[in-house]
Amino acid sequence: MNSKDVIAESRFSSDKMRKTNLFETRNFFCDVYGLEPGQEQKVHSHDDADKIYFVIDGRGEFLIGEETCVLGPNQIVLAPAGESHGVRNIGEARLTLLVFMTPNPNKR
Amino acid sequence: MNSKDVIAESRFSSDKMRKTNLFETRNFFCDVYGLEPGQEQKVHSHDDADKIYFVIDGRGEFLIGEETCVLGPNQIVLAPAGESHGVRNIGEARLTLLVFMTPNPNKR
Repeated sequence: MNSKDVIAESRFSSDKMRKTNLFETRNFFCDVYGLEPGQEQKVHSHDDADKIYFVIDGRGEFLIGEETCVLGPNQIVLAPAGESHGVRNIGEARLTLLVFMTPNPNKR
Repeated sequence: MNSKDVIAESRFSSDKMRKTNLFETRNFFCDVYGLEPGQEQKVHSHDDADKIYFVIDGRGEFLIGEETCVLGPNQIVLAPAGESHGVRNIGEARLTLLVFMTPNPNKR
């Protein structure tokens, strides 16, 4: 059975945000990101792949295209293919994100 | 900004489980499922699409292929393309699931 506990799988590091892969197929990957306070994923974009961020714990400031928003637990945001996106942990606690990307850019 | 509160978007119904779409592109869809106690998504499969279930709240019994497991909050499971899968709310509280499917079978 391909089941996992996302919190148990999450990893954090004092030097930079940590990505931990949960699942990967030809079609997608699913990671858990761990960001200590102040850490970020710099703004970037993917020409062909959509990304979703779902906040499990903590508070993140998301930049998607020209817009910024702060999201907390159980909030979700879509970064469509071609749109720039990034996230920064603006809270005082750890930020844990469930992240999906499809198609899988590593499998093309 | 394409952001949503998944709990606020979730819907439940006394007659059967409710699916509410959050996002959809050519590449995937992302829904929130609401299952009252005892409700289920019957076992089925998709030849070409992978599905992920992530438990936001409650407890569900998942059947994936020949295996069964009970998952609770922050646990996640993959039903790879071609593998039969279903879920039943075996708890006494509502079951809220975040669900991803890719590629999007509605857009082919």
